[in-house]
Amino acid sequence: MSKKLSIISFSGDFDKLTAVFTLATGAAAVGYEVNLFFTFWGLDAIKKKQGRAFIGGTALTKLLGFFMGGLRNAPVSRLNFLGASPIIFRRLMRKNNVATLEELVDAAKALNVNFYACEMAMNILGLKREHFIPEVKDVLGVATFLKIADEGQTLFI
Amino acid sequence: MSKKLSIISFSGDFDKLTAVFTLATGAAAVGYEVNLFFTFWGLDAIKKKQGRAFIGGTALTKLLGFFMGGLRNAPVSRLNFLGASPIIFRRLMRKNNVATLEELVDAAKALNVNFYACEMAMNILGLKREHFIPEVKDVLGVATFLKIADEGQTLFI
Amino acid sequence: MSKKLSIISFSGDFDKLTAVFTLATGAAAVGYEVNLFFTFWGLDAIKKKQGRAFIGGTALTKLLGFFMGGLRNAPVSRLNFLGASPIIFRRLMRKNNVATLEELVDAAKALNVNFYACEMAMNILGLKREHFIPEVKDVLGVATFLKIADEGQTLFI
Repeated sequence: MSKKLSIISFSGDFDKLTAVFTLATGAAAVGYEVNLFFTFWGLDAIKKKQGRAFIGGTALTKLLGFFMGGLRNAPVSRLNFLGASPIIFRRLMRKNNVATLEELVDAAKALNVNFYACEMAMNILGLKREHFIPEVKDVLGVATFLKIADEGQTLFI
Repeated sequence: MSKKLSIISFSGDFDKLTAVFTLATGAAAVGYEVNLFFTFWGLDAIKKKQGRAFIGGTALTKLLGFFMGGLRNAPVSRLNFLGASPIIFRRLMRKNNVATLEELVDAAKALNVNFYACEMAMNILGLKREHFIPEVKDVLGVATFLKIADEGQTLFI
Repeated sequence: MSKKLSIISFSGDFDKLTAVFTLATGAAAVGYEVNLFFTFWGLDAIKKKQGRAFIGGTALTKLLGFFMGGLRNAPVSRLNFLGASPIIFRRLMRKNNVATLEELVDAAKALNVNFYACEMAMNILGLKREHFIPEVKDVLGVATFLKIADEGQTLFI
């Protein structure tokens, strides 16, 4: 019987996204069906532009998109040291042969982890499907996601 | 067969409470039994007074109650911009026809979502049942909540 | 039939660790099998040294260990007031006969809650088994933890 792990990836923090993709790839590697539902700040992880960019329909959402900063500028949730902390962690990961966040995202794609984007959060932030990487399988609402996650483990990160 | 979704609503952040009530109403709308267990900062969501108020038994807990600020003053967990951010998000939600946090709370009531308050957190923060909205069904400890949540999906937000 | 609760304890915040150990002891007290998987900032909860210490292999990880600060210096996730807040909460807990964080950790040990440490986070932070309390049962990767958590409720805190 196939196992299932579903994660609502809400946070845009470097350390929490690292947790999301470590769990996702670890589970997929041992045969789990893995579903990632990106919402709110978490949408940063599936944007085509990994760096800062004025993405979004209006001036306000564009500014928000800029401040969110993309995957490459994800802050650490604690002890961020004005942005020095993600650089330190990236270095520690490389030095200790632990996959970096970007490598984990690539591994998740290779392991056929399912990427979904949250429709409501996209509406709020002025994001459209074309802003995301092509690996995003679908744009979903809560009810559809719950159906996909049914009968498995579900985490909110 | 009826499905069940239970959420331990720990955070008092505007964006995370929005996630709690989006999940709760989305699940209830498609027939789920939904149980929300409010604890710690999350208790702000079920206080009668939605604004800042000196609620709590002693001077210290009253001050804490004031700083927590109630649902109307919930900060955003990231990029709060000294309180401008919740105002921006409320505007973006209204503009994009997405329900605001207060509307989502009302929808949850209408959809018979079960509201529970955490006994231990109430003791720490000096809160009593009469401080909460009448929709709060019961005051519970951990063991009782786990029993209610049994056999369904459970999230910690 | 025995019930199971597994928690990925990621946060190093005083209030979130209090939630972890309140849930763990509450569940264990009514007969649940409880598994705590400490990772990242959460590793502070199982360090032998509960105070600030330069723990870790290199200068950089030692400095990180110092800043993380150990269980005794865990900050509150919101309204930390430069460190006054954990002191306030500890006092409120004692005054209201609610177990403090350190007492909850001891209760978890007494109730045979299973403590596990995350291998990858240990590698990044330069932590070794000997840095942890003897109650830590094993050092695990994600796949093994998922197997242990299988068929129960799993939370990410």
